[in-house]
Amino acid sequence: MSADGTTRTVQVERHRATSELPVVDVDELAAEEPLEIRVEGQSVAITMRTPGHDLDLVTGFLLTEGVIDDHDDIRAMAHVDDPADPRGNTVDTVLSEGVPTARARSADRSFYASSSCGICGKASIDRVFARFDPLPATPGIELAILHGLPARLRAQQAAFTRTGGLHAAGLFDFAGQLQLLREDVGRHNAVDKVIGAAVHSDLDLSHTLLVVSGRAGFEIVQKAIVARIPLLAAVGAPSSLAADLAHRAGLILVGFLRADRFNRYGALRPSTAPASEPSPAGE
Amino acid sequence: MSADGTTRTVQVERHRATSELPVVDVDELAAEEPLEIRVEGQSVAITMRTPGHDLDLVTGFLLTEGVIDDHDDIRAMAHVDDPADPRGNTVDTVLSEGVPTARARSADRSFYASSSCGICGKASIDRVFARFDPLPATPGIELAILHGLPARLRAQQAAFTRTGGLHAAGLFDFAGQLQLLREDVGRHNAVDKVIGAAVHSDLDLSHTLLVVSGRAGFEIVQKAIVARIPLLAAVGAPSSLAADLAHRAGLILVGFLRADRFNRYGALRPSTAPASEPSPAGE
Repeated sequence: MSADGTTRTVQVERHRATSELPVVDVDELAAEEPLEIRVEGQSVAITMRTPGHDLDLVTGFLLTEGVIDDHDDIRAMAHVDDPADPRGNTVDTVLSEGVPTARARSADRSFYASSSCGICGKASIDRVFARFDPLPATPGIELAILHGLPARLRAQQAAFTRTGGLHAAGLFDFAGQLQLLREDVGRHNAVDKVIGAAVHSDLDLSHTLLVVSGRAGFEIVQKAIVARIPLLAAVGAPSSLAADLAHRAGLILVGFLRADRFNRYGALRPSTAPASEPSPAGE
Repeated sequence: MSADGTTRTVQVERHRATSELPVVDVDELAAEEPLEIRVEGQSVAITMRTPGHDLDLVTGFLLTEGVIDDHDDIRAMAHVDDPADPRGNTVDTVLSEGVPTARARSADRSFYASSSCGICGKASIDRVFARFDPLPATPGIELAILHGLPARLRAQQAAFTRTGGLHAAGLFDFAGQLQLLREDVGRHNAVDKVIGAAVHSDLDLSHTLLVVSGRAGFEIVQKAIVARIPLLAAVGAPSSLAADLAHRAGLILVGFLRADRFNRYGALRPSTAPASEPSPAGE
């Protein structure tokens, strides 16, 4: 195990097309273990994650699932001291007085739907809007600063450089300075971790840009909207439903972000446009 | 929508670092919509998937979740004709006589645990072995044929070429000939689809190699083992738990597959080794 727990070493045979015999060596892989998320002792979700920054992950998960609104809603959060779980893969959270634990049961349902989000695209989009208002217009973002962000993200991605197997999520300020970065074997977890870290450090998410190393699917867009982040930029491709949701919510969605180019999807029209406006997704 | 339903067109602004003004254009994105999987009318899982080959996806899901053992366990499977779901995002399955529907309830649980697999790495690995025997030794695979497979997979990846946003999973025979390929916005769905397609076409999975365009996490390895596929090759990186499980189950796991090189993890020692042998994962 590496010092920070994000990688594990395993035995490997390295094969080369130019050589008949493989070389037996040691390889460093991204660590992956399950984490059980509990609220008031009740299991809410189990996720495969890279150990480390577990409390950030749980905080971000509880925020983006609507269980908490901010840091003040958490009375206590800690790994469970359980002989049956010597590896520390369970975190329990006690909510502050007045925070309805019923929300955790609703998170239970929505996490069940998590590789998911509802029975059809329309229903799931409606569901997000049932709970959250569209984002306000954010005229202050210079899209030109985006070009430099992937290089800045990558420069800080220590574990990825060693393993090639970790997704990164970074929060930048509007001037393009990196504020927080987290890595995880799961794309969604990396986003939850960096959002949770922002909650713990009182960073105002409505004044940040979220940059992810992979693709931008529906759930990543959903998390950004719930966290009130005005711009999401992905090095990879967005999905159709991600672009559709971003447009409806007024999130600026950037895909294929490179040093010399990017595509802007989503809020191409003023976010004050009526919700009944036809979607840009050609269906 | 594209003719095969795997992509959608959306409005996009293309930005270039060399130009002050963006170009408004149309972009083709990987389609993403929820699919509800039902067994005997009961909802078992909801997954975000790329429409198309839905019955392959459901069949592969039911097989890798242990609900069915083979094609004969399915009496009927079809999209639900429901006015509330005009977009055809629900598939129901009637099992053959004698197939216990209780298995579907257990799949329900394991899908709940799906970004997951149990409370700790050990427990989840034990759970797989509780249901499935380790794979038999497969001396017939020439690792040297692997080098050509990523190019063959990519050559057939029509939708990826257009969108950059789809994962592919291909089944090859031991001579390196592509038998089946499926694409999806979700890595796990692409694997379920190609496994389901093999079940429908009576392809003997124990004589195939599974190649995936992305990374190999625990759940991908788990699906390959349950489907009795002897070798899994990923263009991307494996995770630590994936390598650990592959080793214990006797699955040959290949990572970072390229034309000129690859790494072999997993069953580096005979798969007849006792299960109590120390894992190669350095923990």
